[in-house]
Amino acid sequence: SIDGQRLWDTLMAMAEIGPTANGGSCRLALTPEDAAGRRLLLDWCEAIGCTWRVDRVGNLFIRREGRRDDLDPVATGSHLDTQPKGGRFDGILGVLAGLEVFRTLHDRGIVTERPLELVVWTNEEGSRFAPAMVASGTYAGEFAVEDTLSRRDADGVTLGEALEACGFAGDLPVGKPRLDGFFELHIEQGPVLEDAGETIGVVTGVQGMRWFDVTFSGQSAHAGPTPMRLRRDALAAAARLIDRLQAHALADASGDTKVTCGCLDIEAASRNVIPGQVRLTVDLRHVVEAELDALEALFEQELAAAGEAFGVGVSRERIWASPVVAFAPECIAAVEDATRARGVPYRRMMSGAGHDAVYVSRVAPTSMIFIPCRDGISHNEAEYATPEHCALGAQVLFDAMLARADR
Amino acid sequence: SIDGQRLWDTLMAMAEIGPTANGGSCRLALTPEDAAGRRLLLDWCEAIGCTWRVDRVGNLFIRREGRRDDLDPVATGSHLDTQPKGGRFDGILGVLAGLEVFRTLHDRGIVTERPLELVVWTNEEGSRFAPAMVASGTYAGEFAVEDTLSRRDADGVTLGEALEACGFAGDLPVGKPRLDGFFELHIEQGPVLEDAGETIGVVTGVQGMRWFDVTFSGQSAHAGPTPMRLRRDALAAAARLIDRLQAHALADASGDTKVTCGCLDIEAASRNVIPGQVRLTVDLRHVVEAELDALEALFEQELAAAGEAFGVGVSRERIWASPVVAFAPECIAAVEDATRARGVPYRRMMSGAGHDAVYVSRVAPTSMIFIPCRDGISHNEAEYATPEHCALGAQVLFDAMLARADR
Ligand SMILES: NC(=O)NCCC(=O)O
Ligand SMILES: NC(=O)NCCC(=O)O
Repeated sequence: SIDGQRLWDTLMAMAEIGPTANGGSCRLALTPEDAAGRRLLLDWCEAIGCTWRVDRVGNLFIRREGRRDDLDPVATGSHLDTQPKGGRFDGILGVLAGLEVFRTLHDRGIVTERPLELVVWTNEEGSRFAPAMVASGTYAGEFAVEDTLSRRDADGVTLGEALEACGFAGDLPVGKPRLDGFFELHIEQGPVLEDAGETIGVVTGVQGMRWFDVTFSGQSAHAGPTPMRLRRDALAAAARLIDRLQAHALADASGDTKVTCGCLDIEAASRNVIPGQVRLTVDLRHVVEAELDALEALFEQELAAAGEAFGVGVSRERIWASPVVAFAPECIAAVEDATRARGVPYRRMMSGAGHDAVYVSRVAPTSMIFIPCRDGISHNEAEYATPEHCALGAQVLFDAMLARADR
Repeated sequence: SIDGQRLWDTLMAMAEIGPTANGGSCRLALTPEDAAGRRLLLDWCEAIGCTWRVDRVGNLFIRREGRRDDLDPVATGSHLDTQPKGGRFDGILGVLAGLEVFRTLHDRGIVTERPLELVVWTNEEGSRFAPAMVASGTYAGEFAVEDTLSRRDADGVTLGEALEACGFAGDLPVGKPRLDGFFELHIEQGPVLEDAGETIGVVTGVQGMRWFDVTFSGQSAHAGPTPMRLRRDALAAAARLIDRLQAHALADASGDTKVTCGCLDIEAASRNVIPGQVRLTVDLRHVVEAELDALEALFEQELAAAGEAFGVGVSRERIWASPVVAFAPECIAAVEDATRARGVPYRRMMSGAGHDAVYVSRVAPTSMIFIPCRDGISHNEAEYATPEHCALGAQVLFDAMLARADR
């Protein structure tokens, strides 16, 4: 079985690249730090005889040959990019657990029937380039290659330019290689497993998510002499929207409605200037597609109402919609069988976060494995998973991959 | 009487320095643009025989000799710095109207009994360095010179460093020269005069204002899997506070309560990260000091309630308090007499904006003259006052200054 200590050591070694003040990592997609993380991984993989290719959107495919190289590979993987103040596990665990699977096979001299493939998907977080999972989405045909390459970060740099700059602009056609199946190990990024004292989540699907860019256009004016009733305060309207959306989501006793406003920018902000223009991001999620439709309709109503209340023009663009996903029954079963064989408490569950598996599931049978993370915290430097849980997750991944590769 | 066309031409010439896309100006305090504006003014003043000195906080004193140079001068002035997207009149009118007074006297060969002084106060806007009116406040003894010099802008540059860099670090002791009186012409920056069809505001005082830096400390976490009820969303708490403060201010039928949140910053913001830390600025104003106390108490209550509602820690620092000001009766009378003599509709009124006259009034008899500005808009590129109103304001300033200088 896999070597938990070795897995932990590689996780900690990767965290040395782009370290943040409070024990997290900052490797925004396609920055020098992200590239350094990729090169460290490639060094490790070359040392055990793997070969690799990069596709046109920077997805990295690391191959371990099988006995039947005419067959499509069984794959695993995730991402190495992080949030601006991200943790050491989100995405990284999935990649380095794949490495640990390869290393374990290498140590034992095992050759699987089908080849295996470890994939590092580009820009999963969506923090540098929106949307999230853009490169696995391109692989799966959701986004056109040229559109993906021309997406811009906040400084106006395109994804294509960033790929060239960091040395990971490849020439493998996007969509290649086809995969026989895909398994992704990930921390849960929420508190459900930890609260229930369970150690594995058998992931059956992913909630739907929609991203919006909202603009409030009021009128900047002087904070002192401008009467309240004549103001057109763009921030007041944004605050009203945020407050109403929070109230609505908190009122859903099922807990299935999720609303997050992550970014808010005031144009030419100054203490004594009434904000004239505000941009806000809105992230809506639900496990039921029809409920997500209803949530979007409510958001639009509240947006219009907030604009009207403060005499502020509003506009919104839906920049991303990822529908509710159901994973492949045979892959879910492979994970559930492997988990049951280890005799650990587990649950079948939906994922609250988007993952590259969302898009890959459109073109290959897919499922995921979750392990708990401390206090359910992720997208935060304090993110933590125990060495035992990481090892257990990697073991379930190993077992599920081998079962599929040798079926 | 004064030359309205010449005044207008100097206003438009000054607006050529640091022009913005939509017809405004950007001359943040002590930037190269601000310095260029000052040098243009000094060229104009030297051409009519004036001398000048700069004090240690960069205040610029431009002198026109009188018959009795042993007496304290009668002064006018305002500021040349602007908001990031400021207009062509806020502050600038007061300075260039002073120049027009000097030019008119020069053309006619008039020498006043007392000397006259045109003052350009440093960093009035408070946009680059907080608080506003910091250098006139230092002149008046409200702030210590060393404290003022060590105030930092958003990039960490101190006011003292900025003074050196732009060539306006002078050696005149702060507080010199003493002034016999101070008159400041300014656009109203609100809609009252325009709405009433009046052309001059005889300013009797200034409303009180208080500035706060507020910090909301929640916990950043993933937007997808984190249940709403377990979140500690710093932006949700900030939005609640903003919404409540707006509701409170709007509910005051007198219109005397004013609340503005001008800046809001989310630390390490990302679309799919629940904001963990938010900084917000709050500007509270009222014409009655006791009501301002009550407003501050309400703000603190609402801040605590917003923090509690979302499980978010809150803290606030009051970084500035400028009490309600009453100007000197004899200076108000000088302005009112000059206005009445011109036979124009006017009103006595309080100022909603802070002005350098606020602090100067502590050490010299002071009052102000307002003219209307279009739609009451200021701190905005669209700020506008008509040539006729500018000329009328400068004429009242001329008359009031001469009455005092020759009394
Ligand atoms: N796992 C993860 O952080 N994915 C980013 C996409 C999302 O926001 O859910
Ligand atoms: N007149 C003006 O814009 N002053 C700045 C201080 C204030 O915010 O009132």
